[in-house]
Amino acid sequence: MRLLSPAACTALLLGAALVPARADEGMWLLNQFPSDQVKASAGFSADAKWLRHVQLGAVRLAGGCSASFVSKDGLVLTNHHCAHACIEQLSTATEDKVKSGFYARTAGAEVRCPEIEINDLTDISDVTAEVRKATAGLDGKAYNDARKTAFARIEKACADTPESPARTAGAQPPQSPQVSKIRCDVVTLFHGGRYDLYKYRRYQDVRLVFAPEFGIAFFGGDPDNFNFPRFDLDLSILRVYEDGKPLHPSDHFRLSSSGVTDGELTFVAGHPGGTDRQLTLAELRYQRDTALPDRLLQLAELRGVLTEYQQHGPEELRHSTDLLFAVENSFKALRGREEALTSPTLVAEKAQREAELRARLAEDPALSASTGGAFDAIEKALGRLVEIRKPLAFKEQGQAFHSSIFRFARTLVRGDAERGKPNDTRLPEYRDSVLPQVTQGLFSTAPLYPELEITTLTFSLTKLREELGADDSFVRKVLGHKSPATLAKELVTGTRLADPALRRRLWDGGPAAVQASTDPMIALARLIDDDGRQVRKVYEDDVEAVVKKNEELIAQARAKLDGAHAYPDATFTLRISYGQVKGWTEQGVKVAPFTTFGGAFARATGEAPFDLPASWLAARGKLALDTPFDFVTTNDIIGGNSGSPVLNRKAEVVGLIFDGNRHSLGGDFGYDLSSNRAVAVDSRAILEALRKIYGAEDLARELSE
Amino acid sequence: MRLLSPAACTALLLGAALVPARADEGMWLLNQFPSDQVKASAGFSADAKWLRHVQLGAVRLAGGCSASFVSKDGLVLTNHHCAHACIEQLSTATEDKVKSGFYARTAGAEVRCPEIEINDLTDISDVTAEVRKATAGLDGKAYNDARKTAFARIEKACADTPESPARTAGAQPPQSPQVSKIRCDVVTLFHGGRYDLYKYRRYQDVRLVFAPEFGIAFFGGDPDNFNFPRFDLDLSILRVYEDGKPLHPSDHFRLSSSGVTDGELTFVAGHPGGTDRQLTLAELRYQRDTALPDRLLQLAELRGVLTEYQQHGPEELRHSTDLLFAVENSFKALRGREEALTSPTLVAEKAQREAELRARLAEDPALSASTGGAFDAIEKALGRLVEIRKPLAFKEQGQAFHSSIFRFARTLVRGDAERGKPNDTRLPEYRDSVLPQVTQGLFSTAPLYPELEITTLTFSLTKLREELGADDSFVRKVLGHKSPATLAKELVTGTRLADPALRRRLWDGGPAAVQASTDPMIALARLIDDDGRQVRKVYEDDVEAVVKKNEELIAQARAKLDGAHAYPDATFTLRISYGQVKGWTEQGVKVAPFTTFGGAFARATGEAPFDLPASWLAARGKLALDTPFDFVTTNDIIGGNSGSPVLNRKAEVVGLIFDGNRHSLGGDFGYDLSSNRAVAVDSRAILEALRKIYGAEDLARELSE
Repeated sequence: MRLLSPAACTALLLGAALVPARADEGMWLLNQFPSDQVKASAGFSADAKWLRHVQLGAVRLAGGCSASFVSKDGLVLTNHHCAHACIEQLSTATEDKVKSGFYARTAGAEVRCPEIEINDLTDISDVTAEVRKATAGLDGKAYNDARKTAFARIEKACADTPESPARTAGAQPPQSPQVSKIRCDVVTLFHGGRYDLYKYRRYQDVRLVFAPEFGIAFFGGDPDNFNFPRFDLDLSILRVYEDGKPLHPSDHFRLSSSGVTDGELTFVAGHPGGTDRQLTLAELRYQRDTALPDRLLQLAELRGVLTEYQQHGPEELRHSTDLLFAVENSFKALRGREEALTSPTLVAEKAQREAELRARLAEDPALSASTGGAFDAIEKALGRLVEIRKPLAFKEQGQAFHSSIFRFARTLVRGDAERGKPNDTRLPEYRDSVLPQVTQGLFSTAPLYPELEITTLTFSLTKLREELGADDSFVRKVLGHKSPATLAKELVTGTRLADPALRRRLWDGGPAAVQASTDPMIALARLIDDDGRQVRKVYEDDVEAVVKKNEELIAQARAKLDGAHAYPDATFTLRISYGQVKGWTEQGVKVAPFTTFGGAFARATGEAPFDLPASWLAARGKLALDTPFDFVTTNDIIGGNSGSPVLNRKAEVVGLIFDGNRHSLGGDFGYDLSSNRAVAVDSRAILEALRKIYGAEDLARELSE
Repeated sequence: MRLLSPAACTALLLGAALVPARADEGMWLLNQFPSDQVKASAGFSADAKWLRHVQLGAVRLAGGCSASFVSKDGLVLTNHHCAHACIEQLSTATEDKVKSGFYARTAGAEVRCPEIEINDLTDISDVTAEVRKATAGLDGKAYNDARKTAFARIEKACADTPESPARTAGAQPPQSPQVSKIRCDVVTLFHGGRYDLYKYRRYQDVRLVFAPEFGIAFFGGDPDNFNFPRFDLDLSILRVYEDGKPLHPSDHFRLSSSGVTDGELTFVAGHPGGTDRQLTLAELRYQRDTALPDRLLQLAELRGVLTEYQQHGPEELRHSTDLLFAVENSFKALRGREEALTSPTLVAEKAQREAELRARLAEDPALSASTGGAFDAIEKALGRLVEIRKPLAFKEQGQAFHSSIFRFARTLVRGDAERGKPNDTRLPEYRDSVLPQVTQGLFSTAPLYPELEITTLTFSLTKLREELGADDSFVRKVLGHKSPATLAKELVTGTRLADPALRRRLWDGGPAAVQASTDPMIALARLIDDDGRQVRKVYEDDVEAVVKKNEELIAQARAKLDGAHAYPDATFTLRISYGQVKGWTEQGVKVAPFTTFGGAFARATGEAPFDLPASWLAARGKLALDTPFDFVTTNDIIGGNSGSPVLNRKAEVVGLIFDGNRHSLGGDFGYDLSSNRAVAVDSRAILEALRKIYGAEDLARELSE
């Protein structure tokens, strides 16, 4: 996903969530949608029925994108970059679906994506009281453990419902029998001000139907990413299957052939991944001074490595394109955040607002008592995090072992140990609620590329040695007398885990099978397992527990001061934002809200990434060149919103979110109406391209119904 | 150079320069050396004769390192990494002097380095009054122009002395007739508190005599860089020739065979490149928030590119090693600075000290009047710099054109234009005082590697497009419809400037020759010349002029408040620091000040960069394994000090500075006695290795005399 994120480096509305949000700002909860506000400002009533329809029509890709049902036969519309990994996985050196595009003209030609899971939100319920009861009077580790146990218990109870796998397993041959059709997640909102239980329908049989060529999906490439004017057909069309047949979802959105006009009211229903608008000052400083520099420097160097790796040849170029895109996209998004945080005003304004909040809290004896030490406790815990962040990242969070095969090995080793425990005491990533996603990834038939694995693993092992030091005991344990390059080559050429059948046998074979394995990658995962768990425990007890508990205290106190009539920081759960189609002014020059097909031809140079595909050049004469192509709106979105439908009042799809402009990059911290914009593909462009360029009349018709 | 820089992230003595420095802190001027302080604390009198001897024995490499005369026949001792470029330039794919080392057993075998210039400081005079007179009453651009004109005039008058080229040209056949043997630089000290004229003897016939294998010069590689314990023989030995014969310098230092002991008084005479200890708060923030992140991210990505470039094959590895070292070394040094600046205390302490200073200035009506707006003016100018920094870097400062051949082209185009102007109105880099260094580089016979040129030029053109945007008019002018890779390849394969004879013909041919040239690299340099000059002018008028003027006002005011009995920020001019051999305590564990040869054998793993050369493995039985190898001292040094002699009271060389420990990386901003250390090769290791490993008894004897 391109880390879409509207907001700004200047005039930021920090801490805005607990005061009534300015028009157009807000990633609103479905069950706290400000219908009155929309009615007042735009004259449209989003009633319960409309909201329920939007809730059921919008879905998410569990790996980190948004999407929506767009036909009665289960078509799903999302971005090309959200399905890029799948399209690359379904390609080979001789048949490159990324480069050439793909269209399944018959149902039989639709190909299953090995790693896509789709979640459709069916119910939301408030479980705040149950979580609070479990953690009442607790602190530190005890608080943290009780909270997690409560989450696991609530999720488990939710999944054990009439639709649970025991009752439907017999009817779903293409899925593994243990895959539950229900997924339940407890979601922490307002940093602990509220806990909601989100219940999803889960779909893992998702097939690729259509994708345009990468050259038009990502026309302009990294140079144009996060910029506008823009000329991208960044879409892919998938179809959800159930029991081997196309799904007929209860709700879907039809694509509008009349599109949208300048100034028109627009809604975006999607899954923003995360924002940091309600962080404390200390948390922002940690981002600015430590987290972002660490991450950006790693990404920049990896970007350099991958860029030069692609020079080895066309096959290396092909199989590393999605990874390089992900790296460059994250880099640009995080660099935007860093620039926002190092601007002269942002942190200073945050400091002032926090001082004001603390003064108000101090005036109320009860709130003063509950939050008196909270801000300082968070700051102190972050000081501890600065100390342990590198061991944590390298020993536990995978930063030392940038390899798909290592991740398989860790999943096998950890999965065995964790599955032997009761559900509510497992590491969260091995709870029953997420195991289907884990095994989908583990059993994936996606191809692996040894040279690329060696390259990224060498890079990450080198960073391990660099950041922890050549004399660190963990580094010595991992490397021994070998260089990073030597070890990486030995591991990747020695392992047999590239075979998905072997991974399935080991997973199904249980602890004995894994323990008996002499595979070098499994041996490495075993060797370092305790080191990872130890530093993770330090993190959970000394940092996470303190931060969560004190964030919750502050959130409760703020709710008492200001009420809860606002939107929480994003949590990769369904939100609706409202806004309008609107350009902006860039250094005195007006930027119009729409581009056209004609503009794409004018911008093309013939050299990547500004080269149009042959299909477009051939179809030029047939195309209506004034067809609106991409457009911008004031909707408040961020990374994770990629693939979200832009809906009009009738809940028709008028656009497909795929990016934000560069002013949106600081949107993690606040929203600036004057210049930050969401960027979408126009529905008219989608239909015109399908009909005139790709000869996909049937598909266009199915989308329009 | 490894950017040596003692100081600390904690307990920083910021703004320390105008209060009496703590013992061991200080990069002292030769003409303001605190002899009384040394006498009081260490019982040693550094009298005028001793100081004069040290001044004449110490030299600098004009490209950015320190060194010293170490024999009566003109031998010069410096680091391997200071001569690495030369050693690589004198190597070929089949004879790799970097990898295998080099020893000229006869005078005839000594090979000239194509790009090394050595400067020996002969005289210092105070020219403050003359500069002040020229700039009196002026402001902004007028101030800046007057100041530069005064510099040029003073330097020119200084160079026109009895030793000037007109009088000696006939006697120096190996040098180009126009090369002046005198180099004069006006040096800005205390940020304008004082101006001194430094007069040097210039030597350009510098020949390589000895270098050990890269594997032992840089044992431990990047992982051990800026760390200690350390086991590096980071030295090279050069010889200065004059009139075709070895130079007999007036002063030299002999290598001590008895070395140094724990706690012993040590002096370092060298050329620290620059420190930022006296910057204003706004200047520090500019470093933290803008300059360092910009630079580090570029270095990180280039590092990734070069690391993967080296995977193409052994020849690519060989010819890019020095460049990758330079990138990694800068990265680590600047990352240390960033970590210091983002530590919780440094900027906060600086803010407090500056507030105190401003309060003191406000109490004095005269000082208040002169400096009232100075701090804010600097801050505002830096705000302007934030806006123009990218056009400045890419259009004028070469960041878009990372190519040796482009630099030649720019030198030819600019050099022609500038040489046609009177000396005192030229761009400073084309003044007569530095032209010999310019032409030495331009006429260099060092080999060039087209693939590497294409790689780095592609990288930098990509960054140009990324940072200024694909629609920027300058970017369009440079790239046209081409991609960065296409343009880079066309330029590098199309140019003939790789031929030094052609470069000389164009330079000697004057404007007509360059203007008539159709060489594509020259055409590019011509195409963008005005763009670069324009943004440079904006920088000089709006930023540089304001900062220099106001820094000078503050410096004068501080001098009035506190006197000038301290040391100025480093300026790549000769300084003496004093200190002692001393270990430190690292997280409760004592780090001993010396390592030994035996320790190197214990640390070796057989895999690069921890593999000892074959010569060392073969000689192991002959070596005294308890020979001290490297050691640490408390001397206050920074980048540029690489190659500095460590001297004892008798001005004998007991060590050779080559690095600082990791605590020294924040030394740009202050000095912390408790943990920051300079790292040196022990003179006993040098002599033992020359005799027992390299069979260089003659050389060892010459160094000991």
